[in-house]
Amino acid sequence: MQSLRVALGERSYFVHVGVGALSAIDRLEPAIVKGRIALITNEVVAPLYAERLEAALTAHGARVLRITLPDGEAHKTWASLDHIYDQMLAARCDRHTTVFALGGGVVGDVAGFAAATFMRGIDYVQVPTTLLAQVDSSVGGKTAINHPRGKNMIGAFHQPVAVLADPLSLATLPDRELSAGLAEVIKHGMLADAALFDWLEQHMDALMARDAQALAHVIQRSVEIKAAIVAVDEHETGVRALLNLGHTFGHAIEAGLGFGTWLHGEAVGTGLVMAAELSRELGALAAGDVSRVRALVARAGLPVSGPALGIERYFELMSGDKKVRDGALRFITLERLGEARISEGTPRAAIVAALEACCD
Amino acid sequence: MQSLRVALGERSYFVHVGVGALSAIDRLEPAIVKGRIALITNEVVAPLYAERLEAALTAHGARVLRITLPDGEAHKTWASLDHIYDQMLAARCDRHTTVFALGGGVVGDVAGFAAATFMRGIDYVQVPTTLLAQVDSSVGGKTAINHPRGKNMIGAFHQPVAVLADPLSLATLPDRELSAGLAEVIKHGMLADAALFDWLEQHMDALMARDAQALAHVIQRSVEIKAAIVAVDEHETGVRALLNLGHTFGHAIEAGLGFGTWLHGEAVGTGLVMAAELSRELGALAAGDVSRVRALVARAGLPVSGPALGIERYFELMSGDKKVRDGALRFITLERLGEARISEGTPRAAIVAALEACCD
Repeated sequence: MQSLRVALGERSYFVHVGVGALSAIDRLEPAIVKGRIALITNEVVAPLYAERLEAALTAHGARVLRITLPDGEAHKTWASLDHIYDQMLAARCDRHTTVFALGGGVVGDVAGFAAATFMRGIDYVQVPTTLLAQVDSSVGGKTAINHPRGKNMIGAFHQPVAVLADPLSLATLPDRELSAGLAEVIKHGMLADAALFDWLEQHMDALMARDAQALAHVIQRSVEIKAAIVAVDEHETGVRALLNLGHTFGHAIEAGLGFGTWLHGEAVGTGLVMAAELSRELGALAAGDVSRVRALVARAGLPVSGPALGIERYFELMSGDKKVRDGALRFITLERLGEARISEGTPRAAIVAALEACCD
Repeated sequence: MQSLRVALGERSYFVHVGVGALSAIDRLEPAIVKGRIALITNEVVAPLYAERLEAALTAHGARVLRITLPDGEAHKTWASLDHIYDQMLAARCDRHTTVFALGGGVVGDVAGFAAATFMRGIDYVQVPTTLLAQVDSSVGGKTAINHPRGKNMIGAFHQPVAVLADPLSLATLPDRELSAGLAEVIKHGMLADAALFDWLEQHMDALMARDAQALAHVIQRSVEIKAAIVAVDEHETGVRALLNLGHTFGHAIEAGLGFGTWLHGEAVGTGLVMAAELSRELGALAAGDVSRVRALVARAGLPVSGPALGIERYFELMSGDKKVRDGALRFITLERLGEARISEGTPRAAIVAALEACCD
C-alpha cells in the first residue's frame, strides 16, 4: 500500500492506495475512529463493502451509524442531504462524529457536503469504490449537490481527513463506470503528464481487464497529479481550473441530455476529444495528437462523438457552466500532450469547428 | 465612523461602525462592488433600507439583484436558501458575485450560508440592521439554517469580507428586538469586560432610549470583544465557546417553547441569569453579582424567569444542543463578572438549583 500526501498545511491528509485499503483502519489516526462514525453509503455498494468496513471500524472501537442512500446521480440532491442530517441528528451525532463516505462520486460529494455543513463542519474520510472517485472526486475537497438549474451548483470546499482507495473494489464495478473513471485518468495524462498518456496507450488493455496492479498505478499517478495541483490552488482561483479539461463540453452534454443519461465520465471522455479538437483549431495541438486522444478515449470504451444537440444549444448550455465569468466562455486547452492552459476569449469559430468535428 | 479589524489572516476584514455605515460603500474595497451583487433582505427591512443601499451600490457601478425573503426565524430554512439559489442561478450569478446581507440575524445567517455554499463559496458583506446582528451574529463567520430537529444545525464557518453596522438603522427596530440585542451586549460584559458591565448599569436608560452615541459605543465594544475571541479560535474548538454564555439554557427555552415564541435574545437574557445562578451554585460568583445580572437583564426589558417546562424537559432539551459532547453537558460559567470559563462535569444538583431559581 502507498500513502500519498496531499499538502494543504493544517488541512493536509494522506491518500492510502492499494489492495486492502478499504478496511485499512490502522492507517488512520486513532482520533478519527475513537468515537461515533456515520457510515454513509448507497444501496448498491452497501451489500458489497459496508459490512467489511463497518467490522474494521467496530474492531477499532468505533460506534457506527449506517446511512444508506438510493443509488445514482439523480439522488445527489437536497433530499439525500436532508435524510443524512435527519438520521445523524436523530442518533445524536455531534461535532466529534466522523463521516465515512463509502461509494462513488455521488456518495462522496453528498456525504462530504453533509460533513462540511453538519453543525458547521465535521471530519470525514473518503472511501471511494469507483475508479472515478478514486482518481478524481475523493481527492481535493470539492463537495456538492446538484440544483435543478445546474450540476454541483451548491457545495463547499471541505478537505477529507483521509482517503482509502482500494483497487479491489473495482472488481464489481460495471463496465461503463470503469470507462468513466478512465476518462479522468486520460485527462490527467493529457493535462500534466505525457508519460502517463504514453503508459495508458501501452496498458489500456490491462486496465480494461481490471489488472489490479495497472489500476493501482493509475490511481497513484492520478492522485499525485491532482494533489500537486490542489496543493497550490485549493479553492480553484487559478491553476486548479486546468483539472476542468474537457469539462465545459462534458457538462453541456450531461445537461443537454438530462443528467444521468450519460455518465459524467462518458461526457468528459467526449469532452476531452472536443478539447483536443479545439486545441488543434487554436493552432496548438498537432492533428496526430488529436487522433491519439480520440483513439485512446475510444479504447477506454468511451464515446468520442457528442449528441446532436445543435451548436446554439451547446453554447447555451456551456454558458450556464459555473466556470463562466460574466458570460465569457473560458476553456482549458492543450499546448501539447502533457501541458494545458486556460484559454480566455476563444474565437467562436474555433469552438464551433471543435463541436462540429465531434458531433454526429 | 470607526473601522475595527477582525484579524483572521487572509480572511481578515473590517467592521465599519457608525452613523451612515449602511451606505458607506466607499469604505469597501472596490473589487467587492465592481460586478454583480445579490442583495438579500427581507420584507420588513426592504422598504426601510434596501433602496438606500441599492442606490449606493449602483452609484459605485454594481449591478444589483434584489432577493427578498419572508420575515422571521420560521424562515431560516432550506426553503429560503433554495429560493436564494434559484434566483441567483436564474439571474446567472457566478463565482464573482458578491452577496450583501441586509437585515437581522436570520437574513445574515441564511444569506451567509447561501454565500458559503453557492458554487462552493462566494464573498459576502454583512449589513446588519438589528442590534443583535450588529453586536453578535454579523461578526465571526457563523452561518446556518435551522433543522426541524434543532436550531443552527446546518451551516458553515464563512467569514464576510466586510461588515457595515449603522446605529441609525436601530431607530425602526421593535422594542423587543432592541432588548434582544442588549442581551448579547450584557453577555459580552459578563464574560470578558467588567467595565462594560458597569457602563451598561450606568447607561441602560440611554440605550433603551436609543441614544445613537450610546448604541455606537456598545456595538464597537461588543465587536472588539467578539473579534478578539474569534481571532484566536475561528472554528470554536476552544475559547470561542465562551461566547455561548447563557446559550445552552437559552436554546432549551427556545426549543421548548417552539422557535419563534421567544426571541433568541430574550431566551439568552434568561439564560444569562440562569448561568449566573449556576456560577453561584458552583461557588464562583457572589450572590450580589447574581442580583446585578438579574437587575440589568430586567432593565434591558428582558425576561428573567424561564418557562415552566419541567426540569427533566430542560435537561432533555439541553442535551440536544450541539455543544454537547458524547451526551455530557457543558456550561459556560463565570469566575467573576468579566471572566468566564468552560465548566465540564457540572453536578446535576447545581444545574437543577439554577433552573429552579429562574423558573416560575
